[in-house]
Amino acid sequence: MNAEIIAVGSEMLTPEKIDTNSLYLTDQLNNLGIEVVQKTIVGDDRERLRATIAGAMNRSEIVILTGGLGPTEDDLTREATAGALGRELSYHPEISDEIAARFKRMNRPMADNNKRQAMVIEGAEVLPNDRGSAPGQWIQISNSNGSGLTMMLLPGPPKELKAMFEKQCLPRLHKVVPPLVIRTLCLRVAGMAESDVDHQIAPIYTKYANPVTTILAGPSDIQIHLRCRCETEAEAQKLLQEVGGQIENVLGDRIYTRTGEELEDAVGTLLKERKATVCTAESCTGGLLAQRLTARSGSSDTFLGSIVSYAPDLKTYFLGVDPRSILLDGAVSESVARQMAVGVRHRITATYGISITGFAGPEGGTEANPVGTVYIGIASETDCEVKRFQFLGDRERVRALAAQTALDMLRRRLLRE
Amino acid sequence: MNAEIIAVGSEMLTPEKIDTNSLYLTDQLNNLGIEVVQKTIVGDDRERLRATIAGAMNRSEIVILTGGLGPTEDDLTREATAGALGRELSYHPEISDEIAARFKRMNRPMADNNKRQAMVIEGAEVLPNDRGSAPGQWIQISNSNGSGLTMMLLPGPPKELKAMFEKQCLPRLHKVVPPLVIRTLCLRVAGMAESDVDHQIAPIYTKYANPVTTILAGPSDIQIHLRCRCETEAEAQKLLQEVGGQIENVLGDRIYTRTGEELEDAVGTLLKERKATVCTAESCTGGLLAQRLTARSGSSDTFLGSIVSYAPDLKTYFLGVDPRSILLDGAVSESVARQMAVGVRHRITATYGISITGFAGPEGGTEANPVGTVYIGIASETDCEVKRFQFLGDRERVRALAAQTALDMLRRRLLRE
Repeated sequence: MNAEIIAVGSEMLTPEKIDTNSLYLTDQLNNLGIEVVQKTIVGDDRERLRATIAGAMNRSEIVILTGGLGPTEDDLTREATAGALGRELSYHPEISDEIAARFKRMNRPMADNNKRQAMVIEGAEVLPNDRGSAPGQWIQISNSNGSGLTMMLLPGPPKELKAMFEKQCLPRLHKVVPPLVIRTLCLRVAGMAESDVDHQIAPIYTKYANPVTTILAGPSDIQIHLRCRCETEAEAQKLLQEVGGQIENVLGDRIYTRTGEELEDAVGTLLKERKATVCTAESCTGGLLAQRLTARSGSSDTFLGSIVSYAPDLKTYFLGVDPRSILLDGAVSESVARQMAVGVRHRITATYGISITGFAGPEGGTEANPVGTVYIGIASETDCEVKRFQFLGDRERVRALAAQTALDMLRRRLLRE
Repeated sequence: MNAEIIAVGSEMLTPEKIDTNSLYLTDQLNNLGIEVVQKTIVGDDRERLRATIAGAMNRSEIVILTGGLGPTEDDLTREATAGALGRELSYHPEISDEIAARFKRMNRPMADNNKRQAMVIEGAEVLPNDRGSAPGQWIQISNSNGSGLTMMLLPGPPKELKAMFEKQCLPRLHKVVPPLVIRTLCLRVAGMAESDVDHQIAPIYTKYANPVTTILAGPSDIQIHLRCRCETEAEAQKLLQEVGGQIENVLGDRIYTRTGEELEDAVGTLLKERKATVCTAESCTGGLLAQRLTARSGSSDTFLGSIVSYAPDLKTYFLGVDPRSILLDGAVSESVARQMAVGVRHRITATYGISITGFAGPEGGTEANPVGTVYIGIASETDCEVKRFQFLGDRERVRALAAQTALDMLRRRLLRE
């Protein structure tokens, strides 16, 4: 079943306001196996709103309107919905009495325009609002051909909307919607471009309409979401395993998690399993790697500390880097990265020492090592591996890519041990 | 003039993802005097997308599409727009060559599906993307009756979209839209709650319909935006000075910038003016403060380095903290914060040493110093000031508040010198 959500109100079309009600509603609807296929945000304009509602009614089986149920002349959801349905609005004095009683309990006078809130669409059920004055409305239309339309008019304030949806709409929806099980799988991939990932896995996921596959891309971080809709739990799990398994076969250890967690969490788990510890020596990332490694409570089990050696002489003083290497090879070089990783590991006495030195830009860089060049080293008791990378993007992106890549190098190293 | 924004992508219809591009675009369009009258979010469905675009074209003079320009089969914006316009798509090998060159610079192979990004709608101008691989498209149609339609196809990633809009779309829009002078002033305030700020300045800004005042709140960071729309530059500047000046009188040195810059940038400027340097010793923030102090190019003039002493013995080894203080007072204490600040300043030889030690949670804490307790120290040649804070919120928020507060303490200290 498909649903559309229409948020009503000119304030929702300003640069500051965001429609968060639709996120809550989407979550609730997805849990029932209902897909949200379109969201619209429309201002307090009678004809535009009527046309938007009419369009949604023709496309989708469930249409939810949020907002525009207040007492002012700007609040047009009731009238526009009645117009789109070709039905009349009528005044229900018992609703007006309830609103008046509510105002009396708060010792406030009721303005006359609150009577607008007592206008009900022909054939609609009134949904009581125990958090505010605007009642909602539920409209259920069964067509002779077996198809149906469900419409909900809900108040805009999130607290009122959530309470009304849970108490009034969910029980009614359960009667309309066939039961369905939704299960998701989120695989995350480091160190690959979105187009490379898609090129490799499109031949797999395009064969399946269920699960639905979505790919989200961040800096060196690709999320592959599989969402399965089935009649039974077993069927859903089987399908996810079938499609997820094929994707895992293709991408192998590029996948760092099957639970959607962040890369630093996957690395933290591997470190804990191996009872290993890590420390870092950072230059261009300025502490970003350490900050990610300490993002979660309990990280003190595996992370010991970091030296952010931004000034060159600190590389010598705290990490023991030979000043001649800095002079001859430059602070951004293979040899300095190696000495930083070995030095920090030695002085902090961790299982692994990670170093990052590079030109994050926009200023700096040399002909041999232009802006975006980053050396990453990982030292262990037995060896030290250093790799050179050339990242593209602004300063923030180069720093983010460097930290992400360092975490992924450590992860792949841990998998090999 | 009216505009509509259509965000494309099934991931935008999940409970997690929010369309923030439209907020940026609305702000930019409002600055030109263009009203956004409808926003739609639609999934990767060819026919639904085509119908949505066709509807918007019939209602509004400007239609902006965001997202769906990637290389995968899901990326349908180009095809659906061509369909709605009844125009053909054609392959432009020179675009494909540019994308290939971009991949080559990154030493990565270009997947064959990137060629999809070289498909251009008949009559469209190609908008170069200097932050990513997907070029945008600009379509300008002048009807014989004098009305016109402007369409923009922009990439979904916010950085790519913003750069393209500013460099490519704004200059083109200025030719289409009648001129209006918009000037803004952004004051930022640290160390105050939103309600306190609003309580103090509401009596000022509510007197003015122009400029429009908006208040945005982050962790210990309040932004006060004043936006003026006038016919002349002089008129706009005069109004901003009139309202901004009254607000500055009330808030005083709580305001850290009048240009909207970040707190770390305001601190960086003060340090440069005083030819002062800073270093940090961080525990619970794990490098976050160092990372903020190095966020901008040129920060090596004022920032020397940081010791992230996460394991307690590193506080002794690298910073010279007396192990008895850690044992008797605890690692989260006034005395350890003081020794960390003095120690890091001494060993790195900076003008100021800043220390942060605290319980970020959710685990940890003691009866005397529960989760959220953070000590922040600032050492100079002559003294060391340590303050205790009790922050509310989850781990991420406590860490953010600690770093922000440390920066603001340093700023106020620098103002006094």
